[in-house]
Amino acid sequence: MPSIFTRIINREIPGYIVAEDEHNLAFLDINPLNEGHTLVVPKQEVDKLFDLDEDAYLRLQLFTHKVAKAIEEAIPCLRVGVAVIGLEVPHAHIHLIPLHGMHDIDFSRPKLKFSEDEFKKIAEKIKIRIK
Amino acid sequence: MPSIFTRIINREIPGYIVAEDEHNLAFLDINPLNEGHTLVVPKQEVDKLFDLDEDAYLRLQLFTHKVAKAIEEAIPCLRVGVAVIGLEVPHAHIHLIPLHGMHDIDFSRPKLKFSEDEFKKIAEKIKIRIK
Repeated sequence: MPSIFTRIINREIPGYIVAEDEHNLAFLDINPLNEGHTLVVPKQEVDKLFDLDEDAYLRLQLFTHKVAKAIEEAIPCLRVGVAVIGLEVPHAHIHLIPLHGMHDIDFSRPKLKFSEDEFKKIAEKIKIRIK
Repeated sequence: MPSIFTRIINREIPGYIVAEDEHNLAFLDINPLNEGHTLVVPKQEVDKLFDLDEDAYLRLQLFTHKVAKAIEEAIPCLRVGVAVIGLEVPHAHIHLIPLHGMHDIDFSRPKLKFSEDEFKKIAEKIKIRIK
């Protein structure tokens, strides 16, 4: 069965997409730790990030660098943090999280709630800043 | 004043080094969340990870991929997770953390204690697996 991320990549389920290229997709996490919390995924359905071969890994990281710079421009924050855990969805994904303090990356924290309209506006703010 | 990581890079203070190339260094975190918790840093002293230009960022990520694969071979774990926060030391660094569960990446958790001899043995196990 395709992963939930593959279903977003294939437009079978909706996602608040902020960037896409041939090999990668970035979209908002719908259970965000902070405003602008974004997931970056390779279209190739690999469970563990470091099981991507070096070429695919570097393509994903170059894409991630562009997305992170756009988030840092779009969302007021100290900087964009990174987390890769991956035990919940077996499809490699990088969390990009705008940070306001040292303990923002703690997935046991309560997640924020946004309306569909708010998510769309956040995604748009990031999207227009992708270089 | 040089950062604490630059002082480790310059061998002014000791570090349990697991890998080094022209541009990057990897060494054990001495306040580890789990056994094998490693820091990967560019030798260039830049505060924010995403302020590295694309070339320097990709060099660091390629190096990180090699170190992460070696940790996954050396340390029994579900996989190696990643965290970048960077609010404590103003020199970009990537945490590579062997994961045993979803909530291992939580920097408010108590850190593990190892003796100098234990740290040396952990570093050596990773070092010999770098490809």
